[in-house]
Amino acid sequence: MRIYLAGPEVFLADAAAIASAKRAICARHGLVGVFPTDHPDQAPEDGEPGWYRLYLANEAHIRGCDALIANLTPFRGPSADPGTVYELGFMRGLGRPVLGYANAAAHFGSRTLAALGPAARRRADGAWEDAEGMAVEDFDLRDNLMLDGGIRAAGGIFETEAVPPAARWRDLTAFTRCVAAAARLLRGQPASTSSA
Amino acid sequence: MRIYLAGPEVFLADAAAIASAKRAICARHGLVGVFPTDHPDQAPEDGEPGWYRLYLANEAHIRGCDALIANLTPFRGPSADPGTVYELGFMRGLGRPVLGYANAAAHFGSRTLAALGPAARRRADGAWEDAEGMAVEDFDLRDNLMLDGGIRAAGGIFETEAVPPAARWRDLTAFTRCVAAAARLLRGQPASTSSA
Repeated sequence: MRIYLAGPEVFLADAAAIASAKRAICARHGLVGVFPTDHPDQAPEDGEPGWYRLYLANEAHIRGCDALIANLTPFRGPSADPGTVYELGFMRGLGRPVLGYANAAAHFGSRTLAALGPAARRRADGAWEDAEGMAVEDFDLRDNLMLDGGIRAAGGIFETEAVPPAARWRDLTAFTRCVAAAARLLRGQPASTSSA
Repeated sequence: MRIYLAGPEVFLADAAAIASAKRAICARHGLVGVFPTDHPDQAPEDGEPGWYRLYLANEAHIRGCDALIANLTPFRGPSADPGTVYELGFMRGLGRPVLGYANAAAHFGSRTLAALGPAARRRADGAWEDAEGMAVEDFDLRDNLMLDGGIRAAGGIFETEAVPPAARWRDLTAFTRCVAAAARLLRGQPASTSSA
């Protein structure tokens, strides 16, 4: 079974090393990890711009996988990388299992308030909003409710791990738990080993 | 035909007024606009937490629509609202038309560099990266390439409009162009009226 390894590590200079490490963990669980930068099986159409070839290659990779594990570690703000979030939604739209992890302990509401800083203000009903009058979503979830909800609806898990700042993009503790859970899901077992 | 109106306006105190304005524009093009906060057709399951009922209602709304128009105006950072991005990917995963708009003239690369400010630095090859060593995607696109690519692959359009800051969440000029394009797409015509 093949697992698409979505995440913004593609932006790191040593993305290939991280891809190898993730693939090795997948292999230990009997799974084939597919990284966004892997060479596509089909050559893209001639004449398309380079960025669109990348898109088409990623879409084909996702369609060719049985499940997806998204690195949803906060990226340049309180929420996850938008490309990764798109891929998470896409795979859920295909009806296949999705799982996620974030190397961050704080939940989405508190991360958003921290990012807004003094710009955050209270509405008359006590809810927080930003300087444009937009409410701060605060359900004590790991990210925007659509991300948490999609993972839950797909039977997946959303793991978090508090790691030192320097390890944010390289610690694979929570990722490894997701791989084990994906392997269980793909065997028809519950993703979580807890009694919940 | 029904159009799902994805976007972070749900966070505004006057979201209902914006929903009405968007629905009216859809109606002028013979389309039914479905807003995330619309009452779901099916009652959610008892015993689920409130946030997850919201997720299930939105997923059901999207599944019940023929196309999606996403408000991809930059939200608390250089990229779009993650919930909206998830929904864009989800609808593309369902194989139905997606379109998007942003009330912002600057492209994604320059918005990202502006958000990073002095934290942005040059790699040896001249590419920009952030303080964590992650490259700044710079394809002169409107957002992360997965968003632009999904819209292109679906035959949609990604419209932008420069609007005054105070009008960012309320100007419907680019949205209106998307509705007209969605109506064309759903009639089997190209979304764009240009020769491209």
